[in-house]
Amino acid sequence: MDETQKQPTLVLMFGATGDLARRKLYQALYQLYKNNQEFAVIGLARRPHTHLSFRSLVSDSITPDEEHIGDFLNRFYYQPLDIEQPESFVSLKKLSDEIDIRYHLGGNRIFYLSLAPRFFTLAAQNLKRAGLTDTVGWKHLVIEKPFGHDLPSATKLNEDLLDVFDEKEIYRIDHYLGKEMVQNIEALRFANPIFESVWNHRHISNVQITSSETLGVGERANYYDQTGALLDMVQNHMMQMVALTAMEPPGRFDTEDIRDEKVKVFKSIRPMSAESISSQIVRGQYTSGVLSDGSVVKGYRDEDNIDSKSNTETFVAARFYIDNYRWSGVPFYVRTGKRMTAKSTEIVVQFKDIPKNPYFYHFEDVKPNLLVIHIQPDEGLSLKLNVKQFNETGNTMPISMKFSNNSGTSDYGAGAYVRLLSDCFKGDSTNFTRWDEVAYSWSLMDSIVAVWKENKVPLDFYEAGSMGPASSDQLLARDGFRWWPLTSTE
Amino acid sequence: MDETQKQPTLVLMFGATGDLARRKLYQALYQLYKNNQEFAVIGLARRPHTHLSFRSLVSDSITPDEEHIGDFLNRFYYQPLDIEQPESFVSLKKLSDEIDIRYHLGGNRIFYLSLAPRFFTLAAQNLKRAGLTDTVGWKHLVIEKPFGHDLPSATKLNEDLLDVFDEKEIYRIDHYLGKEMVQNIEALRFANPIFESVWNHRHISNVQITSSETLGVGERANYYDQTGALLDMVQNHMMQMVALTAMEPPGRFDTEDIRDEKVKVFKSIRPMSAESISSQIVRGQYTSGVLSDGSVVKGYRDEDNIDSKSNTETFVAARFYIDNYRWSGVPFYVRTGKRMTAKSTEIVVQFKDIPKNPYFYHFEDVKPNLLVIHIQPDEGLSLKLNVKQFNETGNTMPISMKFSNNSGTSDYGAGAYVRLLSDCFKGDSTNFTRWDEVAYSWSLMDSIVAVWKENKVPLDFYEAGSMGPASSDQLLARDGFRWWPLTSTE
Repeated sequence: MDETQKQPTLVLMFGATGDLARRKLYQALYQLYKNNQEFAVIGLARRPHTHLSFRSLVSDSITPDEEHIGDFLNRFYYQPLDIEQPESFVSLKKLSDEIDIRYHLGGNRIFYLSLAPRFFTLAAQNLKRAGLTDTVGWKHLVIEKPFGHDLPSATKLNEDLLDVFDEKEIYRIDHYLGKEMVQNIEALRFANPIFESVWNHRHISNVQITSSETLGVGERANYYDQTGALLDMVQNHMMQMVALTAMEPPGRFDTEDIRDEKVKVFKSIRPMSAESISSQIVRGQYTSGVLSDGSVVKGYRDEDNIDSKSNTETFVAARFYIDNYRWSGVPFYVRTGKRMTAKSTEIVVQFKDIPKNPYFYHFEDVKPNLLVIHIQPDEGLSLKLNVKQFNETGNTMPISMKFSNNSGTSDYGAGAYVRLLSDCFKGDSTNFTRWDEVAYSWSLMDSIVAVWKENKVPLDFYEAGSMGPASSDQLLARDGFRWWPLTSTE
Repeated sequence: MDETQKQPTLVLMFGATGDLARRKLYQALYQLYKNNQEFAVIGLARRPHTHLSFRSLVSDSITPDEEHIGDFLNRFYYQPLDIEQPESFVSLKKLSDEIDIRYHLGGNRIFYLSLAPRFFTLAAQNLKRAGLTDTVGWKHLVIEKPFGHDLPSATKLNEDLLDVFDEKEIYRIDHYLGKEMVQNIEALRFANPIFESVWNHRHISNVQITSSETLGVGERANYYDQTGALLDMVQNHMMQMVALTAMEPPGRFDTEDIRDEKVKVFKSIRPMSAESISSQIVRGQYTSGVLSDGSVVKGYRDEDNIDSKSNTETFVAARFYIDNYRWSGVPFYVRTGKRMTAKSTEIVVQFKDIPKNPYFYHFEDVKPNLLVIHIQPDEGLSLKLNVKQFNETGNTMPISMKFSNNSGTSDYGAGAYVRLLSDCFKGDSTNFTRWDEVAYSWSLMDSIVAVWKENKVPLDFYEAGSMGPASSDQLLARDGFRWWPLTSTE
């Protein structure tokens, strides 16, 4: 998995004219090209393109550092493809084999499915039928979310894919796993004894994971209204952050050892009764309001392409318990939503309070110690501490020590995809989700959705521009805690 | 001990024309005056002065914030005084009583002995004989270092003082205890569970306390050549920093509870055999060399007023063990010296390494976690951590999170004396040393001096401008450690 394993590869890009490819993937490939990754790309989509017009589309999608990007663009080829037409795949095989020989790619193939989910299975099957997966090199399938919409559909999709690919060949993208500071959680925890020593229920009172957006439902209205925040964000990104924050140190820093530890976290999440789901999972939907930039925005039900009676949640706050020796009694709070006060993803680890001692009179103002992992837009760490004020009173005051990524290498737009694609070229699937992780997470989500479907859990409304409904605050207040302000709104 | 206890007070300043008074004490009194402390001062020294000429000396010693400091200066009176002449004290009593009435000082008196140590006892005795200590208010004796030159002389001095003052009335100055970040050690440790949780031998591998100077022996040559770094710095300042770093949390944050905990540390310091003193305490003396500013300076033996064969140490490095449950097996290294690379006082707490695991291959570059308490010239904290590099390798890199006092209130020239004098006015002796602390420290120093007197322990030379002799580095290297670079020289 080191740099020497950068083997030449053919990338078959499904959805080559789509949004994700144009916003992220070509820029990521350009980055890898500059890092000396050898590859050629066949763009695949329904609409007609020549190689040349496709290269022009790719060129428009990237921000080149240098004038001459001809050699990079010349590696891009295009074939119109209708996934429902098996014969398209026959000519695709022919083109693939040609390019394979031309660029000495050794038969290594990445099949990147940046497609509507309903095509996942058929794409895989047609690849197999046309013999494209029968290659002398290695083959990796990269598959974008959503991986199913519940456990049964995800299981079916997985079985279909396993007809064509081995589990080890399937790279399920969760782009949060490509983010610098998400990848940094392991280093922070396991390369710093000062943190790992206190990373347990004896020292930590609760963990708060927030991923908030200021955007509304936007152009994804149709998809989003059928999906909601729970399945769009919690099932994948939020649960992955829970797992990385909570997992035991792996025996080795190898892919399967790390995934095993994440699965152990999912297995230890306390199953929830209908009653506890009602009280521990808040669902919210935004109404009209004023964003922090002053703009007045519509409520969710007034958005284009949204049912005016929609009960889809645009906000979720949840409390999970992880019933193992490390986390006994420590609530993990997660929240995510659209049209919130700020765009921010961060993990707040709150440490237990100092002993209540009436004679520690100088320590009246002591705030809890917090370690904040800033995932986006800032990338870094804050540690909130207490020091003596610099005066004669001897009273304490809260301070914050900070570390920010100012390496200049961060480019979190495409950055996550650079790292994930690079891993995929190298054959390192650590930062992709294994099937059992996905399955355990779906199982938990399904139990929540089942209760919500009974319509006994109220949908709580919140004004656009706020931090969610009051019930989200009450969820923590019942435990004696509160959501810490996002760093960007402090 | 709160602000309301600022009672009007008469300050009898012995050594009123001396260096300390002019450099620090008048500035400190000016600061307290601006903070609404009511007082009058009688300056006492051998040389003749009028009230007016003394006020002019005081005026020259301070940096006023405002033009008009007449009211402040008018509180200063002067009386020539020969400590060996009891009759001087009779007229001093008369003047004191007059000023006491004039300013409604209620008989509260601070006797500040900024004197050569040989006068301490006589000054106290003559104060008593003249009835100056027989006052209706409270009386505090402030006494500058050195408090004796070994345990017997310190014991004798203490007994003499106790003939005149109670232990609770004696304020033994260790001006390091007035420094912001020394006073902050308790808040850092006990108001931050994240630190207190790991503040023990299970998590800390060693503690390094450095106080380095770039200055040479200067004008104190006579005194210094008879004293040396061990008694000048280690006996008091360094051992106080050891005690504050190592002590258990007190039951209450009260003066005697805190002092009790510090004494427990001194009691737990492992007594040293002659052999262990030879191997664990390094003594050094500077030779000529080049300072970091490029200036070429003389060796100690060539300094004015220093015996050209002097064996006085200008550098000490020592290893102490504190044999209690908290610190079992953790070396406390201290070093102090003149003519070193930089002027700096800091405490480095080094945490234990991560497990040696060959499969943590990404973690090759992991450096130990360090908490650095910057005492001077910077005031603040650094925490040295490891994070994943912001690139695709996944390797770690060391980072430093910092907090600096930028409150603008720091004025560490007089600042320590402002805080200590303020405490003395308020009757809070927490940041002064109690007799038993002093006695335990002397006992330890005496055991070292006794071995050194046998001339079996070599005096190791170091070039001016260096960090001390090689033996200082070897002291740590034998234990598998090294002195961390001072922050100011990093």
